[in-house]
Amino acid sequence: MSRHTPLLQQLIDALRILPGVGPKSAQRMAFSLLERNREAGLQLGAALTAAMTQVGHCQQCRTFCETDLCRICSDPKRAAAGLICVVGSAADQLAIEQTGQFAGQYFVLQGYLSPLDGVGPDDLGLDKLQQLLQSGLVKELILATNPTVEGDATAFYIAELCHKFQVNVSRIAQGIPVGGELEFVDGTTLSHAFSGRKAF
Amino acid sequence: MSRHTPLLQQLIDALRILPGVGPKSAQRMAFSLLERNREAGLQLGAALTAAMTQVGHCQQCRTFCETDLCRICSDPKRAAAGLICVVGSAADQLAIEQTGQFAGQYFVLQGYLSPLDGVGPDDLGLDKLQQLLQSGLVKELILATNPTVEGDATAFYIAELCHKFQVNVSRIAQGIPVGGELEFVDGTTLSHAFSGRKAF
Repeated sequence: MSRHTPLLQQLIDALRILPGVGPKSAQRMAFSLLERNREAGLQLGAALTAAMTQVGHCQQCRTFCETDLCRICSDPKRAAAGLICVVGSAADQLAIEQTGQFAGQYFVLQGYLSPLDGVGPDDLGLDKLQQLLQSGLVKELILATNPTVEGDATAFYIAELCHKFQVNVSRIAQGIPVGGELEFVDGTTLSHAFSGRKAF
Repeated sequence: MSRHTPLLQQLIDALRILPGVGPKSAQRMAFSLLERNREAGLQLGAALTAAMTQVGHCQQCRTFCETDLCRICSDPKRAAAGLICVVGSAADQLAIEQTGQFAGQYFVLQGYLSPLDGVGPDDLGLDKLQQLLQSGLVKELILATNPTVEGDATAFYIAELCHKFQVNVSRIAQGIPVGGELEFVDGTTLSHAFSGRKAF
């Protein structure tokens, strides 16, 4: 027999799909909403339903968007730069956008190539990216994929596409992070930092 | 201008009402659902709406319940014991229930007396508790309120009620927790442990 009434148990189970939420936190969340904030709980329910059904993808860059083109893709100033930054997720895009240093457009893969999980080029919209490269409007493509095995594999694949369509391709620098201590930086990062050294 | 599209921003804001969820986690949760699990997101939305509107309180013990009486209050074996354990929240009740050591009924205050926040006896259902005490069916009331200022004040108030209706009243023991180290136990707890010592 379950310890909770059916609806409460259903809510606790449903809350556990949120990343980082285990059984104890889920129970705490459910009780907290029921005890103190049912109105907010209803609002969260409505917001979830609205977002899950109505948030789609930008037709050009694949970021999350409720219209055909996202705010960045529909900005002519940003298109004029002729720069495309390729990132793995909308969260990565946001992190770059918050630096305020990049004035071009993005292409959001929403994942990385992973043949074992059945994620191929088409699942990442690389056919769309290819169309962009063929259009002749892209001066440079900047790879900002994660420095992981899958991120690297995806970067290599996209770099090949760029070579094929004669578009300049670069990759964001790998090295020691600002504020990091050399002593605690891992060996591979240190090697990258050395091989990528610049005249000072 | 918001960094997110309206529906996405609304979802991130709504997620922040969950306890322990800040702006970064809320964003991570929203992206995670949109990227990987829209179906589960919809289920969570529906579960929230159902629970917020349909989960009420047990008419006798005030715990969360979708029917008039909860499972424990409708069990004649548990009523026969004539024991009522008073707890501050449904989570506290669950913690006690999980020990499997208590075979009586509960009374869930759903809060503590707090005149400054405008929480008075009626808000905690103490009028209902008084009716129970008056019924003559209660042999002993066990106070299991939190060992905090508000929990203590509420316990004193309820103890007075018990004296008035000549019902035995006890309080769960305060002392050193099992597995704790004396060295790290605070002074007040140690004093309680000493004054509450038992023949060995």
